[in-house]
Amino acid sequence: MAPSKTRAIFLKSFPKGLPSPDQFELREIDLPALKDGEVLMRVIWMSVDPYMRGRMRPDIKSYIPPFTLEDPLDGGAVGEVVESKHDKFKPGDHIVGFQGGWREYAVVPGDGLTRVDAGIAPLSAYLGVLGMPGLTAWSGLTQILKPKEGETLFVSGAAGAVGSLVCQLGKLRGMRVVGSAGSPEKCEWLEKEAGVDVALNYRNYDSAGALTKALAAAAPKGVDCYFENVGGMHLEAALNCMAFHGRIALCGMIAMYNLSEPEPGPPNLVNMVARSLLAQGFIVSNYMHLAPQFAAEVAPLLAQGKVKFRESVYEGLEKAPEAFLGLFRGENIGKAVVRVGPDKV
Amino acid sequence: MAPSKTRAIFLKSFPKGLPSPDQFELREIDLPALKDGEVLMRVIWMSVDPYMRGRMRPDIKSYIPPFTLEDPLDGGAVGEVVESKHDKFKPGDHIVGFQGGWREYAVVPGDGLTRVDAGIAPLSAYLGVLGMPGLTAWSGLTQILKPKEGETLFVSGAAGAVGSLVCQLGKLRGMRVVGSAGSPEKCEWLEKEAGVDVALNYRNYDSAGALTKALAAAAPKGVDCYFENVGGMHLEAALNCMAFHGRIALCGMIAMYNLSEPEPGPPNLVNMVARSLLAQGFIVSNYMHLAPQFAAEVAPLLAQGKVKFRESVYEGLEKAPEAFLGLFRGENIGKAVVRVGPDKV
Repeated sequence: MAPSKTRAIFLKSFPKGLPSPDQFELREIDLPALKDGEVLMRVIWMSVDPYMRGRMRPDIKSYIPPFTLEDPLDGGAVGEVVESKHDKFKPGDHIVGFQGGWREYAVVPGDGLTRVDAGIAPLSAYLGVLGMPGLTAWSGLTQILKPKEGETLFVSGAAGAVGSLVCQLGKLRGMRVVGSAGSPEKCEWLEKEAGVDVALNYRNYDSAGALTKALAAAAPKGVDCYFENVGGMHLEAALNCMAFHGRIALCGMIAMYNLSEPEPGPPNLVNMVARSLLAQGFIVSNYMHLAPQFAAEVAPLLAQGKVKFRESVYEGLEKAPEAFLGLFRGENIGKAVVRVGPDKV
Repeated sequence: MAPSKTRAIFLKSFPKGLPSPDQFELREIDLPALKDGEVLMRVIWMSVDPYMRGRMRPDIKSYIPPFTLEDPLDGGAVGEVVESKHDKFKPGDHIVGFQGGWREYAVVPGDGLTRVDAGIAPLSAYLGVLGMPGLTAWSGLTQILKPKEGETLFVSGAAGAVGSLVCQLGKLRGMRVVGSAGSPEKCEWLEKEAGVDVALNYRNYDSAGALTKALAAAAPKGVDCYFENVGGMHLEAALNCMAFHGRIALCGMIAMYNLSEPEPGPPNLVNMVARSLLAQGFIVSNYMHLAPQFAAEVAPLLAQGKVKFRESVYEGLEKAPEAFLGLFRGENIGKAVVRVGPDKV
């Protein structure tokens, strides 16, 4: 029998600065009745992603509506169809979508779902390297940075879900790749497993000037392509080291997301003019139409072991706030995912 | 007889902050002997441009070599050929080039020169609306901003040589145009003569927040295209008002050029991500190959009176430092030019 209730996580108040664990609350709610075109999914894995912090600011104009305090939180999830009123899906199908997270069961529109194959990769990979972060990485690299063989790529947040794929796709294109991350373990993984030429532990540098020196040494011919996940002193150091006609893909600025007051930007933006730099901000939904092209490149690489990925796994829905907060504390290596239910029941 | 000496202006020391008039010096120097491929020009008009401030920083990596203290200053000039060892030019020809300024006579490579026609426009126009600032305006608009009819364009430094043409070309493309300038006279000219929809006197706004409010009121549908000449609070206000998928042409940041210590950038760069904004820095030499296409559009518009331009004229070579410093004091309306010699001798 299909369940009539689900546990779900709510935000109790909108955070200022870094959210605290007690701003989240687990409640039991009734599931709505299934309407035509909808699917009831049992959630197996849910995603926590930095962009969700932006949805916790009801005052900010963004590309996606803010969360409310009246509805459960929401986000990407992989699950199993329990009941379907959509003609493309039937009970037992494995599916991934941008909605359904932060709950054990969810009613979601079928049009936003994609069927996934547990035989190609573990189901959780559809929230990471084969999912939205993977498409984000691939799109920023191929559609904005447009790398050429022999060029130098710098990636901030390089050990994260997006950054680690950007690094590896850059290496596969014959680039020199420099990545930054926040622990010796992450840097070791980047250099030994992901094949990054130089991994910089940014916690060893106490100013943009110090990071600039390290980056300049790691990128002696200058940085042609910068994939930005962090902001702050990373952006300043990158702007100091960019080569003429360099390109910057602005994917995120995680260092900025939990500031209660915004910090000033870097003082060297004028380098954008003098060096004819391009910066393009983007969100993954701009490139959704390229998902098939992305999957055609990355799925075989994954199957051949040419692309590696890591996950930080949190067990149980109640751990979701901790997984989310770990994103901003630098606690997760690779993709942070929450196991909400077993693969099969 | 061709002269063997010329008066020329030298920099005595590299400025920190706003240069002072006594850092410039007029000297008499010997003219070098003419080599094959070179032309001796008598300078009629010379240009002063904001980018020259960047060449006064010997420590900064830029697209153009810095000035030295041993050679005269240099820059764009219109003149008459006195002697030629280049097969394309003969004595009496009127020419324009990027070299030869800050002197009464100059030996310059003929390959960098273009013959100009005093019958189409006054000779000084080849340093402004039909010259490098004109090509800068046209290139930033057509190659970076790529405006669509009905979109909103914001131009900082709108009464300047570059900005005033950007505004008018935007109007001719059916855009709503908002310009900022630094005096009531400039704003009146922009609205009454150049056809700008709203001109904002930025001196009336004491913060980025105040300028944001004024810009938001003038651009109720958001800013689709921003042509940046100024930097600082203009950039911050623009980023607050940009529409989704907006484009920013980074032409210059004149407010930054004379700071002895760089100022922090705007705190709202994260809007670039959330709104999928593009920013492209550029210099006019990137688009030199499009000069014929530019001239084909703008020269007829000028002849038909559909494009207007203003000049701030300084009389005599010794006034060149004053003209140059006027750029940063906001004293010039339109293109600042220095008359170095008469049209005919």
